[in-house]
Amino acid sequence: MSRRGLLAAPLLASPALLVRPAAAQSPQPATPAPASAPPAGEPLIVRKQVFDAGEYRTRGGGTVPNARIGYQTAGTLNQAGDNAVLITHFFSANSHAFGRYAANGPAGYWDNIIGPGKAIDTNRFFVVSSDTLVNLNLNDATTTSTGPAALDPSTGRPFALNYPVVSMRDFIEVQKRLLDSLGVKRLALAAGPSMGALQAIEWACAYPEMVERVMPAVGTGEFDAFLIGWMELWESPIRMDPNWRNGDYYGQGREPPTRGLAEALKIVTLQARDRGAMAQFGRRPVEGQDPARKITDQFAVERFLDEAATARAKTADANAFIYLTRANQLFLHEYPDTAAALSRSQARWLVLPAPGDRVFPISYNVDLVEALRKAGRPVEMVELQGGLGHLEGVASMNKAEPAIRRFLGT
Amino acid sequence: MSRRGLLAAPLLASPALLVRPAAAQSPQPATPAPASAPPAGEPLIVRKQVFDAGEYRTRGGGTVPNARIGYQTAGTLNQAGDNAVLITHFFSANSHAFGRYAANGPAGYWDNIIGPGKAIDTNRFFVVSSDTLVNLNLNDATTTSTGPAALDPSTGRPFALNYPVVSMRDFIEVQKRLLDSLGVKRLALAAGPSMGALQAIEWACAYPEMVERVMPAVGTGEFDAFLIGWMELWESPIRMDPNWRNGDYYGQGREPPTRGLAEALKIVTLQARDRGAMAQFGRRPVEGQDPARKITDQFAVERFLDEAATARAKTADANAFIYLTRANQLFLHEYPDTAAALSRSQARWLVLPAPGDRVFPISYNVDLVEALRKAGRPVEMVELQGGLGHLEGVASMNKAEPAIRRFLGT
Repeated sequence: MSRRGLLAAPLLASPALLVRPAAAQSPQPATPAPASAPPAGEPLIVRKQVFDAGEYRTRGGGTVPNARIGYQTAGTLNQAGDNAVLITHFFSANSHAFGRYAANGPAGYWDNIIGPGKAIDTNRFFVVSSDTLVNLNLNDATTTSTGPAALDPSTGRPFALNYPVVSMRDFIEVQKRLLDSLGVKRLALAAGPSMGALQAIEWACAYPEMVERVMPAVGTGEFDAFLIGWMELWESPIRMDPNWRNGDYYGQGREPPTRGLAEALKIVTLQARDRGAMAQFGRRPVEGQDPARKITDQFAVERFLDEAATARAKTADANAFIYLTRANQLFLHEYPDTAAALSRSQARWLVLPAPGDRVFPISYNVDLVEALRKAGRPVEMVELQGGLGHLEGVASMNKAEPAIRRFLGT
Repeated sequence: MSRRGLLAAPLLASPALLVRPAAAQSPQPATPAPASAPPAGEPLIVRKQVFDAGEYRTRGGGTVPNARIGYQTAGTLNQAGDNAVLITHFFSANSHAFGRYAANGPAGYWDNIIGPGKAIDTNRFFVVSSDTLVNLNLNDATTTSTGPAALDPSTGRPFALNYPVVSMRDFIEVQKRLLDSLGVKRLALAAGPSMGALQAIEWACAYPEMVERVMPAVGTGEFDAFLIGWMELWESPIRMDPNWRNGDYYGQGREPPTRGLAEALKIVTLQARDRGAMAQFGRRPVEGQDPARKITDQFAVERFLDEAATARAKTADANAFIYLTRANQLFLHEYPDTAAALSRSQARWLVLPAPGDRVFPISYNVDLVEALRKAGRPVEMVELQGGLGHLEGVASMNKAEPAIRRFLGT
């Protein structure tokens, strides 16, 4: 999703947050991705590919029989294998961070800073972006991910809640296998917005010798009780939906908990925005309604939230939502505390918070910078200014372009 | 609830937010309230009373056949009727802002600043606090309020969603009748936290000639699309509960939507706190559980939210919750915009926001102060510092004591 699309298009057409639009995307293009950079001004075409990670033993001791994730790349890996960049995606996104799957298709969510000649220059870097495990977009043709809807070979039925818990660290471990398979030896940069920031940080702590730079946008260095509690609130409407049946809703003749999932996505949608992003709705009622006279009548913003989330819920999976919130709750879970985790990092850091971020308030980023300084790590913080809150981490990355170029130039 | 109680007591014992604790309070004491101030050091004893407002026509054109609200007072009204103070309550509270109903009972939520010799000195002021219409605490012996559970005389059954919509202005209109009945001619101060702040502001705009000073704590001067949207999210779990039946759940043999109401109160509880208020739970799992291995296992903070909200839901009414969120959405609804509303005010203002407030972010208060300055109104802003967020507006009012004394001295 381009900045243009996010900011200029009617919000109803680009419903979500850090919720990817439900708009259909072309599946894999018939023509292979070009090996060399496209001519200036031409869109970067990328190809969605699939990586088979094989059997994967989770950090919590569970077994994923056949872990598969989708990914995409741009640019060329050098001989030393050390010009790679890993882009990690936000809660409701997939690997589509840059480029287009077809010339007239939508651009990736960070396409304004990734591409030939852009801040993260694909003429210089080999840029990789992958789907995570338990990706939300179960019914999206451009997403490949193994999660609770996968078949359990021991029963022949979907795992549902028997799927093993996966943590943020598990995301990283599967990405590590992908990078190994591609010949990547070292990451010049690990970066992403929101949950993508958490993955980038987890990378810097798990494989400090491999990560040269980290750029977490609208993220946090700590998942404390307050944030753990918010994840619980996010998933609560799913558990309220009678169709959820403790996760056992897959299969013919069963209705998935689409309403609960939509209500969950409503929370995410609004919390990922600040007041400026909603100002267009003002205090207008839905046309023909009067909330001052009828309790069931609505304001326009309520209708927007309903419609956007309901559309988005169609391509998403409720159990995946629950596994994703848990993966977030398990951020840096294997370390005694954030300071201990960050002290392992050998990277340079560029931290990009947004004032008015209601998902990961800016105070968490101030703490992250302080913890990095205490650990003796070089760190710069640049605020993504604007009225959109958390959404700035996708919509406004171009505001950080000079800082990113400086960061990558050093 | 005393500051001591809120901060020092285990959170499980004082579950809520700006959610009043579910702890039983003594009903009206047998002994009448003393007319004069208690000796220094003795608790202020107050008596809960009931005001019959009679038939009330709402601003939206509906009819409340028999509007009744509870209230309490302290101090003595002077001959001119101009030493009155009105304290307006937050979302889940009632009139119990100061004093105790029995010597060993709990204190009101602002008791640390209201009483003999305190910042709002009951030796000088006649302090009134009333329950609002559609008060949340239907099953609480110390609350009297008319709302959707009231009997519709035309059917003999509870109104449920046929109860007329009430706005913040309607709260004020019924309070106006109460104050008239008590002989109050002028308010030296209108003040309250959160939804109480909204009522105080609504007062200053509706009856500018009556209000000398306004002190909104952790409030907002504008209920924009972002805040309207949050109200929708708050009530969503109630509508998800199959027991809600579009509000038609009163009467024998029907289960009220207690689970949905509890989930709603969980959102309120967490959003009314900032990270500092939850820090005590850390990243601890529930004892004997391991969220890293079992998807249904929980962190301690999740269990806290469940238990606190479930306990709180027992005394509350789900439909009242929905009518309350609507009343908030209808804040200053009768004016073209906030500037137009505030320009009517003739009062002096003391605005008390809290950094880290996640319900009414501090930026709304900055805007309020700016709008008041533009309108030529004297205004001072004092931040309630601390890590609790919105909750500072109840827990930490003593921090503003010097500013309040200065404000009331002028």
